[in-house]
Amino acid sequence: MTETPLRRDGRTTLAYALLTDLYQLTMAQGYWENGKADEQACFHMFFRDNPFKGGFAIACGAAQLAEMIDGFAFSDDDIAYLASLDAPGGGALFDSDFLDYLRSMRLTVRVDAVREGTVVFPMEPIVRVTGPILQCQLLETALLCCMNFQTLVATKAARVCLAAEAPVAEFGLRRAQGAGGSLWASRAAVVGGCASTSNVLAGKMFDIPVSGTHAHSWVMAFDDELEAFRAYAKSFPTNCVLLVDTYDVKRGIDNAITVGLEMRERGERLSGIRIDSGDLAWLARYARERLDEAGLTDCGIVLSNDLDEYTIKSIREQGAQVMSWGVGTKLATAYDQPSLGGVYKLSATRASADDAWSARLKVSEQSSKLTLPGVLDVRRYRFADGRLAGDMVFDVNEAIDENGTIIDPSDLLRCKELGGLEYETLLAPLAREGESVLPDEERSATAARARTIEGLRHLDESQKRFLNPHSYPVGLEAGLWHRRAAMAASLRAARTPLR
Amino acid sequence: MTETPLRRDGRTTLAYALLTDLYQLTMAQGYWENGKADEQACFHMFFRDNPFKGGFAIACGAAQLAEMIDGFAFSDDDIAYLASLDAPGGGALFDSDFLDYLRSMRLTVRVDAVREGTVVFPMEPIVRVTGPILQCQLLETALLCCMNFQTLVATKAARVCLAAEAPVAEFGLRRAQGAGGSLWASRAAVVGGCASTSNVLAGKMFDIPVSGTHAHSWVMAFDDELEAFRAYAKSFPTNCVLLVDTYDVKRGIDNAITVGLEMRERGERLSGIRIDSGDLAWLARYARERLDEAGLTDCGIVLSNDLDEYTIKSIREQGAQVMSWGVGTKLATAYDQPSLGGVYKLSATRASADDAWSARLKVSEQSSKLTLPGVLDVRRYRFADGRLAGDMVFDVNEAIDENGTIIDPSDLLRCKELGGLEYETLLAPLAREGESVLPDEERSATAARARTIEGLRHLDESQKRFLNPHSYPVGLEAGLWHRRAAMAASLRAARTPLR
Repeated sequence: MTETPLRRDGRTTLAYALLTDLYQLTMAQGYWENGKADEQACFHMFFRDNPFKGGFAIACGAAQLAEMIDGFAFSDDDIAYLASLDAPGGGALFDSDFLDYLRSMRLTVRVDAVREGTVVFPMEPIVRVTGPILQCQLLETALLCCMNFQTLVATKAARVCLAAEAPVAEFGLRRAQGAGGSLWASRAAVVGGCASTSNVLAGKMFDIPVSGTHAHSWVMAFDDELEAFRAYAKSFPTNCVLLVDTYDVKRGIDNAITVGLEMRERGERLSGIRIDSGDLAWLARYARERLDEAGLTDCGIVLSNDLDEYTIKSIREQGAQVMSWGVGTKLATAYDQPSLGGVYKLSATRASADDAWSARLKVSEQSSKLTLPGVLDVRRYRFADGRLAGDMVFDVNEAIDENGTIIDPSDLLRCKELGGLEYETLLAPLAREGESVLPDEERSATAARARTIEGLRHLDESQKRFLNPHSYPVGLEAGLWHRRAAMAASLRAARTPLR
Repeated sequence: MTETPLRRDGRTTLAYALLTDLYQLTMAQGYWENGKADEQACFHMFFRDNPFKGGFAIACGAAQLAEMIDGFAFSDDDIAYLASLDAPGGGALFDSDFLDYLRSMRLTVRVDAVREGTVVFPMEPIVRVTGPILQCQLLETALLCCMNFQTLVATKAARVCLAAEAPVAEFGLRRAQGAGGSLWASRAAVVGGCASTSNVLAGKMFDIPVSGTHAHSWVMAFDDELEAFRAYAKSFPTNCVLLVDTYDVKRGIDNAITVGLEMRERGERLSGIRIDSGDLAWLARYARERLDEAGLTDCGIVLSNDLDEYTIKSIREQGAQVMSWGVGTKLATAYDQPSLGGVYKLSATRASADDAWSARLKVSEQSSKLTLPGVLDVRRYRFADGRLAGDMVFDVNEAIDENGTIIDPSDLLRCKELGGLEYETLLAPLAREGESVLPDEERSATAARARTIEGLRHLDESQKRFLNPHSYPVGLEAGLWHRRAAMAASLRAARTPLR
């Protein structure tokens, strides 16, 4: 996808139309053969549960999605590959006329998406795609991959940063799920609130801050630790953070103090020490005492080693004074929930752009998999002081309940009236006629980071806590709720009971 | 990394020297400034615990590692980016003479790695890198990312395939951790034993089989399910698997039977039906009965929906007859353990290539983080019938205990004599003088897949079971064990007790 180093006009160019599930292409051929290729469809991407048993998520992925759309095309090489595929039962899998169609196809879809860094919740559309059904489906898999993963990591980062209340550096590359994913994970971590990443290529590609000092191997490459520390201080006098636990933390801290005092003699400053093993809460307090005794009160403590929001919260509650945190594996892989189950569901169809939309609903064995019908957007209502009051999922082509009534998608008794409050709508234009229209400022990770911080500031504390958070009110506009219930009832009535 | 679509000589070309942690570059400058850039080092990549609480892992990553090494170079653009970075305390982070050094640097490292598809175990070197310490470190982060992730996914796939005993299709792209990672995850899944992937681009890039049929949205795009099934059968008469749970499984199966009988009339065959929700074990038995009653005994059943090795095992134990399995999220993200904690540790140094190696050891607050000293390889001993007997980690520059004695790295009392058995060594040449020497056949995912299947066939059943597997004997060669213990004791003696 955007893992290519090529750039055009400062943006990554992509030519990854094949980055999709094979069934999207077989279905595409089916639509084409059945005269349905240009029938209009509306799909929404949404998720059903907040990740990490939390109370919110941070939307991320629109920037890569815009790049994917601009780079979408089947090359001659792609077409030749598809032509080479055999059907399992014999013969070519794809019709050569269909492959000619693909080769000359240009996207015409309209895409709207939530801005990166927006606080979002279950059951609200994060992305809406309308256009020829064949095109909508060809985009599905890569769109889901992009939005699911980046939203997941941005959310994890936001949780870690809420716990840390101090700068967090992401350095998960070595344990990330592949090099390409790591680049966007680093960017998503910054969108979620991280101050920097260790990933230099991500820094270059996305204009995000990079940070890092030295590893244990630096210390091991010298005859002793003190010599290694002195050499590092000499090379990086304005940026010296010494890792003190290669052999023995106590001696490491003593050696760092020796070097810190030598730096002070030279008019320099030891910025900090880093501890990467052992009981971090205990060692951080111990190190703070030693540094203060030595007069190095301006030397900070950096902690790392398998941290996440829970360990950071615990270490801080034990009184550790920490200048900054390094968080790797558990952030970059969203360790405790490594995927967001976002889905992309057909919600409306029409024969052509001149017809009215007809809503579609999928029911299945599991009622929790019931989809959302119509062409939808989200209104976010706010109290006068800016705090978030509730979100309404509504059909853009239908009248809206005048009281601003929202009803929980799965519970008729949970409803709320939001009428009279200020609101904004969440979906913003991302592509028109198959070309991205995302303004440059909406591709910026640091601008999205500011949006995350501002958004979380206006979310109630009870909705941000880690243990059993209060659920934020998201409901379907009353009319939409009733239309959906009627459709589900009618589909149920058509069912045959299982033997 | 290899997410670029460019290829040269049929291989992906890479120019991702910046895909590293910033501290590798600051350390590199430190080595360069301290006259250590060309000091020789030996690093090993190894992991400390099998993933998924299992009894084995499947090595994977050598093919991408070879590509990374061949594509390693700092472009002018990379150097300009590095030159633009400021040190946090002021001034440029990097010295311009050092950046000139990087720009003209060519790799000269020697790399040896375990072949893809080899069964491997904790505490044995999977990759060994020797050469100038500066170069060894610049490779560390990307090497770990590549080996950790691909070994993790190949291992997960092997477990799923052991449980399935029928073809498994990987289709995790939509929930994968980024598009780039997904490509190598799809390849690793095949190395671990999967029959195919849904990821079309991975199929094209790595010459691995692709598979897939249709989604729920196909059914929803038609006025009714029967019409949708008929249209699909018409478009794909030799490759028709119908998804039966869009609205109601029972009716879906009835509709599929109707279409299956119509296909039979035309001399065609309904290959299968797929069930993607509900109680899969129960529904699979129900579907088998209905299909058999209708005479469609040659129509198979495909199951999917949040499967992993445990659910597959359970569904099979309940008597479901399954033609093939589709496994997505839990395979592509290694859901229950989304990262392998493989490390890359300095184990020996020498001033120049003409000197003898001096072993290095790292001790820390956690004794489990003790490293392996020396320049190492692994001997795999086999019984006469080919079954694996045990692995010896040994120093290639030292004499080997004549009885073939191995001792558990953390338990002196667990030892074994393997002398007299046949053995092979596991590390194979991957790069010489900074250029990959991996033969083409060792880049093939399907050849690696055959190696996985053959290797697991020779591993004892007790070591393959999911619950509390028997641990396979891996030990340090007796002399290496004692040298390591002596080094650790000497480092311990130099410690100051913590206050």
